[in-house]
Amino acid sequence: MALRNPISQLCKHATLSSIPKVTATSSRHATSKYSPCQMRRMATVVPAVTQDATSSKGPTAMVFMNMGGPSTTDEVGDFLSRLFADADLIPLGRLQSYIGPLISSRRTPKIKKQYAAIGGGSPIRKWSEYQSSEMCKLLDQISPETAPHKPYVAFRYANPLTEEMYANLLKDGFGGGKGGRAVAFTQYPQYSCSTTGSSLNELWKWRNRLEGKGATGLDPAGSITWSVIDRWPVHPGLVEAFARNVETQLATYPEETRKDVVLLFSAHSLPMSVVNRGDTYPAEVAATVYAVMQRLGFSNPYRLCWQSQVGPSAWLGAQTSDTVQEYVKKGQTDLILIPIAFTSDHIETLFELDQEVIHEAGHPGVKRAESLNDSRVFIEALADVAVNHLRSGESCSRQMGLRCQGCKSERCL
Amino acid sequence: MALRNPISQLCKHATLSSIPKVTATSSRHATSKYSPCQMRRMATVVPAVTQDATSSKGPTAMVFMNMGGPSTTDEVGDFLSRLFADADLIPLGRLQSYIGPLISSRRTPKIKKQYAAIGGGSPIRKWSEYQSSEMCKLLDQISPETAPHKPYVAFRYANPLTEEMYANLLKDGFGGGKGGRAVAFTQYPQYSCSTTGSSLNELWKWRNRLEGKGATGLDPAGSITWSVIDRWPVHPGLVEAFARNVETQLATYPEETRKDVVLLFSAHSLPMSVVNRGDTYPAEVAATVYAVMQRLGFSNPYRLCWQSQVGPSAWLGAQTSDTVQEYVKKGQTDLILIPIAFTSDHIETLFELDQEVIHEAGHPGVKRAESLNDSRVFIEALADVAVNHLRSGESCSRQMGLRCQGCKSERCL
Repeated sequence: MALRNPISQLCKHATLSSIPKVTATSSRHATSKYSPCQMRRMATVVPAVTQDATSSKGPTAMVFMNMGGPSTTDEVGDFLSRLFADADLIPLGRLQSYIGPLISSRRTPKIKKQYAAIGGGSPIRKWSEYQSSEMCKLLDQISPETAPHKPYVAFRYANPLTEEMYANLLKDGFGGGKGGRAVAFTQYPQYSCSTTGSSLNELWKWRNRLEGKGATGLDPAGSITWSVIDRWPVHPGLVEAFARNVETQLATYPEETRKDVVLLFSAHSLPMSVVNRGDTYPAEVAATVYAVMQRLGFSNPYRLCWQSQVGPSAWLGAQTSDTVQEYVKKGQTDLILIPIAFTSDHIETLFELDQEVIHEAGHPGVKRAESLNDSRVFIEALADVAVNHLRSGESCSRQMGLRCQGCKSERCL
Repeated sequence: MALRNPISQLCKHATLSSIPKVTATSSRHATSKYSPCQMRRMATVVPAVTQDATSSKGPTAMVFMNMGGPSTTDEVGDFLSRLFADADLIPLGRLQSYIGPLISSRRTPKIKKQYAAIGGGSPIRKWSEYQSSEMCKLLDQISPETAPHKPYVAFRYANPLTEEMYANLLKDGFGGGKGGRAVAFTQYPQYSCSTTGSSLNELWKWRNRLEGKGATGLDPAGSITWSVIDRWPVHPGLVEAFARNVETQLATYPEETRKDVVLLFSAHSLPMSVVNRGDTYPAEVAATVYAVMQRLGFSNPYRLCWQSQVGPSAWLGAQTSDTVQEYVKKGQTDLILIPIAFTSDHIETLFELDQEVIHEAGHPGVKRAESLNDSRVFIEALADVAVNHLRSGESCSRQMGLRCQGCKSERCL
């Protein structure tokens, strides 16, 4: 029987010590140094062949995974129908394929208006393409041994979808007998089964469809070798990028009251059913927040709050919108909202925070720190996360191999 | 009108920069260097006089605050009745004084049996007295300018209670016109309004009763000057102490499977009503866990889970007991439970984890990391936290001055 999710299977056995590090000599021209057994072990993580004779290990595909968003209001319907069809994100049980479309079509007109209000579409594709291509330029400089690096974007609910990205990979000469290496780089710094987990399940589905195993149950020779950057919540460069945007916004307050401005870190909430089954996201978001506050020298009072709750079930709080209202009511009207779990602007910052929460607060002291978008510090952080991963020889983090305690998902088996 | 809680009032204005640092020359013999205005500002954080001519700033009272536990089974009834009378910990509304005693008397026989099962009482007093006195010995060496340091323990629900500690302070020559400095040092590394907040409210109540303000609304001359160590979730020494106890337990597993042992960090849970009003505890516990995993080099998969839920309302999960059961069911039978929010053994480790969770798991691979108890690394960490506080001139953290967004408590006003 074929394994349903070889990525996590791979992760179970992947350690820094158990995976031979790839050196410049371990190309196909040097394979005779290794026994067949060693080769089999290496075959799980090291490209058997490379596509480009100019480098021993490149090119390397760097695939940015994110939820995505509709680039135009016409795409909102499709976006929502994919979103509500995703049982990893919104578990609706056996009736998912009936209830999902109902909810999404009912919500489409309202959400279309929100995208219209932020300029007609989400900027997430623009930012993802910019960030990934800028990062690859940097990587070519700092990691020539894995160059050239080619940027790809795979969104879970909007174009470019995973299947489109995968087709492009094959068209560009990865896989299809030629091997090559690809890195699935989550753009959610903190791991959740609802986000990164869902993207990886989708990636694996398309890998099986487009580069499926044959009767032997083994990967066909020369298929793409994947590894995963599954979380990076306290990378110093990420922390620095967040901290600088906070400092920039803090500087707009008068010096005598600056220390009393409350920093409100805001992350997308999760249903308590997901929290209670052991999802690691809340704790990793908290780790990011603490690291940013350490970097800021605990200069200000702060709170972590959670936004974008929908529906009648219980979600993790305190809610961002309530928090702002309560503080304003208590007379604390200098507040900076800091989006801490997303790496570029999207509907939750441009509409929910800017046009709802801040507008409703009705006080000029309530502001938002800029999203990371084109932050140079952030691009450098991405390159550093990537190069550390490429050099580590890891296929994913050790944490990735452990299912949540309360997980019942077939897809995570 | 007198301020109801001058501690948090004090905190609002306390910063490293705004409070003059106390130097060895700023004793009563050198006060003439300062203007009356400077002196007034200093008076809020610096002892006006000292009691002991052997040192310019000592003696310093170091008061360990914790929840405490009954030292004998005879004390269980009183312990529980205080616990259920505390609206900061268990908010029962207007009927607290009626419902609290009912619940506590109903639970007393069951809890008595639990204390009997762990040897007839809680070891928390023994460990608190040991830790505080060992820390003070160290402090006398590394901070001679604030020596001698005198250890005190104040428990919220068991002897020695706050009033007993305060009476001892006065008897020992602190306050009562003689001034002197005392540090309220919470032994909950992560701050919650239910724990450290409750202890501070209690401390402030007794301060007002025993050293109350006169008609002027000002503190009487020569009363004790308090400062607060309100949280220290990622102090490197604390993290090191936790990590070493994890490593010791990991070393008991065979080398070939050691990397696959799951580390289960367990902290006392909170009701979701407290989480949702913005309590900082869950995020600070997560910060501790992340710091310990960083120190361990992410050597093992891990999860944070939450124990000791009671009653029918919703609490933060995943639950520790469910987590262990689910993993054992999935075949993951090598698990180390790590108490991460308490600094010594108590009923939740010795009974709930050891005699319930681990016993019910029925597998020798399910173990517990030792509590910090007499860890020398931990004692050194305590001394380092204390000396940093004494040298900083801070009256408390900046975070302490900010009430939770959803807080309605009169006592926190």
